[in-house]
Amino acid sequence: MEKLNQYIEENKERFLNELFELIRIPSISSEAEHKPDMYRCAEKWKALLLAAGADKAEVYETEGNPVTYGEKIIDPALPTVLVYGHMDVMPVDPVDLWHTSPFEPVIKDGKIWARGADDDKGQSFMHAKAFEYMVKTGNLKCNVKFMLEGEEEIGSPSLPKFCRDHREMLKADVILVSDTSMIAPDVPSITTGLRGLAYWEVEVTGPNADLHSGIFGGAVANPINVLCKMIGDMIDDRGHITIPGFYDDVLEVSAEERAKMAKAPFNLENYQRSLGIKAVHGEEGFTTSERTGIRPTFDVCGIWGGYTGEGAKTVLPSVAHAKISCRLVPNQKHDQIARLFKEYFESIAPEYVQVKVTYLHGGPSYVCPIDLPAYKAAEKAYEEVYGKQPVPVRSGGSIPIIATFEEVLGIKSILMGFGLGADAIHSPNENYPLEQFFNGIRTIPLFYKHFAESVK
Amino acid sequence: MEKLNQYIEENKERFLNELFELIRIPSISSEAEHKPDMYRCAEKWKALLLAAGADKAEVYETEGNPVTYGEKIIDPALPTVLVYGHMDVMPVDPVDLWHTSPFEPVIKDGKIWARGADDDKGQSFMHAKAFEYMVKTGNLKCNVKFMLEGEEEIGSPSLPKFCRDHREMLKADVILVSDTSMIAPDVPSITTGLRGLAYWEVEVTGPNADLHSGIFGGAVANPINVLCKMIGDMIDDRGHITIPGFYDDVLEVSAEERAKMAKAPFNLENYQRSLGIKAVHGEEGFTTSERTGIRPTFDVCGIWGGYTGEGAKTVLPSVAHAKISCRLVPNQKHDQIARLFKEYFESIAPEYVQVKVTYLHGGPSYVCPIDLPAYKAAEKAYEEVYGKQPVPVRSGGSIPIIATFEEVLGIKSILMGFGLGADAIHSPNENYPLEQFFNGIRTIPLFYKHFAESVK
Repeated sequence: MEKLNQYIEENKERFLNELFELIRIPSISSEAEHKPDMYRCAEKWKALLLAAGADKAEVYETEGNPVTYGEKIIDPALPTVLVYGHMDVMPVDPVDLWHTSPFEPVIKDGKIWARGADDDKGQSFMHAKAFEYMVKTGNLKCNVKFMLEGEEEIGSPSLPKFCRDHREMLKADVILVSDTSMIAPDVPSITTGLRGLAYWEVEVTGPNADLHSGIFGGAVANPINVLCKMIGDMIDDRGHITIPGFYDDVLEVSAEERAKMAKAPFNLENYQRSLGIKAVHGEEGFTTSERTGIRPTFDVCGIWGGYTGEGAKTVLPSVAHAKISCRLVPNQKHDQIARLFKEYFESIAPEYVQVKVTYLHGGPSYVCPIDLPAYKAAEKAYEEVYGKQPVPVRSGGSIPIIATFEEVLGIKSILMGFGLGADAIHSPNENYPLEQFFNGIRTIPLFYKHFAESVK
Repeated sequence: MEKLNQYIEENKERFLNELFELIRIPSISSEAEHKPDMYRCAEKWKALLLAAGADKAEVYETEGNPVTYGEKIIDPALPTVLVYGHMDVMPVDPVDLWHTSPFEPVIKDGKIWARGADDDKGQSFMHAKAFEYMVKTGNLKCNVKFMLEGEEEIGSPSLPKFCRDHREMLKADVILVSDTSMIAPDVPSITTGLRGLAYWEVEVTGPNADLHSGIFGGAVANPINVLCKMIGDMIDDRGHITIPGFYDDVLEVSAEERAKMAKAPFNLENYQRSLGIKAVHGEEGFTTSERTGIRPTFDVCGIWGGYTGEGAKTVLPSVAHAKISCRLVPNQKHDQIARLFKEYFESIAPEYVQVKVTYLHGGPSYVCPIDLPAYKAAEKAYEEVYGKQPVPVRSGGSIPIIATFEEVLGIKSILMGFGLGADAIHSPNENYPLEQFFNGIRTIPLFYKHFAESVK
């Protein structure tokens, strides 16, 4: 640990400069214009891995964005860790809410401020540097493989095929991922569950052109009115989603487990204050952490239609759109939910409009058992750095590819996240505390050590 | 009539060139950047009136956009006609749906295609040319005043004060307005009623920043979900607006008058086909023409919030917005409706969001009695040009300033419109048939003739 701290101290500035070079590439996967940036990012990662000590590293083409793979095999008899991360980031709008330029990282108040500072450039980069430390100081006790993809934020459409096509190359004993958060700097935690996801775009069309709302208003259905009504009807007064069959496969969590979950530190008043809301709101009969951890959701992520410019333009628009997502919980099947939603949305559409439902992406949920040797190794590593045993938590977020890894490669993932709730990932002013960044680099080599020992 | 037709034939090309110069000025009143264009338009109108034969014409400053006033007083003992029109136009978005450039007029298929071709540059320009004809050929039988404003499309905020400040100058026996439509080229009609209008922008705020929909979704209310629910609840299953007191002042139309209205030609199948809809939809118990003519409406003119870009971005947005308008019918008071809406919207807002309601503009409704001498004069003029007596109709549209003229100046308006339902005013590909344009120039001098005779 002494040696590790010294290494970090000596290389600190270089680490940050290298990370900043990565962050400056605006690798927004949902915007086609950034396609070249995905390649720049992939090449940058290849160079980073080789410089850190990988035997080989390659950029692989996929049907979508490229994947960078690298490895260092020291002894086939030793356990192998596969590190997964993603080099793509979320869009930056609304860009006017950023206090600094999203792709020009700055350090202020002990944090790195930039899109990707946490999710996932900052977090995945910790693994490159922990790897570098282990190689350069002769402390590497496992074989290591790296796989960095460029489509995580759009649901990893190409990675399942990449995994199927490279099963042998990706063979490992465990997958290590830093793309989640912990409860607080003084309350370390490891994510043991992830919600699944289903995401649609819907379109409601009324008349074949925008109409004068005076001449036609009242007689021709307004597609925005209709869309609002349809969306409004999809959640009832008790916060239940009204799609028939939606809850059929939801695993009910036992009263005992719910009681255990309730012991995680949570202050409703602080939570509400930090979000600027007077009250929380969700499904009746569940607490806030249950609502985000073990229950599915229905959120309109975006809506648009008609006149949205300055001032007052009267119009009866032709079309209204919405982007809708559901977070899913263990045992719900995203493709089945996709179908149920589409059928229901189409069934409640009145005859005076036409609707179109496009399923944009989805992914299954994931659970990691806490008696897994790799989980135990992570637990010990956190304890040594943070001085406390980490709490296992079920996160509300989704990393659909994690469930796919289990399905396709047959490997469990350990979600060693070092983000914090305040990091504003996916939002303006994303940030990542330097302390978490360097603690991550400290924790990772300890995991390798304990994991190698546990498998001996 | 012979003489008039000849004059039109000889000057046709010049008329169109002059109109096109007016149309080329992008005088969009709702967009602040076009303020200089309003002045260019006002000066252009001043020049047009002087060239047509006005004794004087001036551009007047107001608190908002300028007003052009011009007059020709031939004999104070003769009746005076005040022509009202507006030089401002609606925004042009969605601009990609236009087949030609909105502010570069083209003639195709016997129509002028451009923003303002009908509403109201094309229609108001007919009056300038009819006036020119009467002056140049010694046929002017009334005193004429012209008032062109630049804020009609944003609710004429400055014109009431202008009217109050210039009561003496604007004195007239009747106001003549061409800013409405007729049923069809072979079914001439005159608008005898206009709906009023109330227009709001609403804002629903949940958390103080965009949130990760996985981490917070399900526990923190989504303002788009909430806005949709609130809007959805504002119209019930029978098509009734649920704002308490909303219908209190609505004048119920007698069974007799409804029976008369029902005789206006209307083909539901053609109506639906032309709009590309499978069914009409509106308030239960009323026909399509009643829904647009004698009943109030509730239309969301625009809605926006969250992620509206390409692909699938998951986000729990901080804010959702909508622009909402109600068309009002005689006896409903727009300022009272404005208040009822605001109170109701605020009252149904759940505690977990904050709402803000901004009243953008509004105006009263208007009715013109069909036994008015000026109405009779207009009726005769149409009959001589179109060969049929025009049908009196109650339009669904709003020209709030018309009711203000009655209130402030004590003068009734005759709505001699020559637009057609297919002119796509306020929409992409606005157009105005040349035949209607020239028939308007034919009809107007006949109105002056009959009106002068009726007042003798």
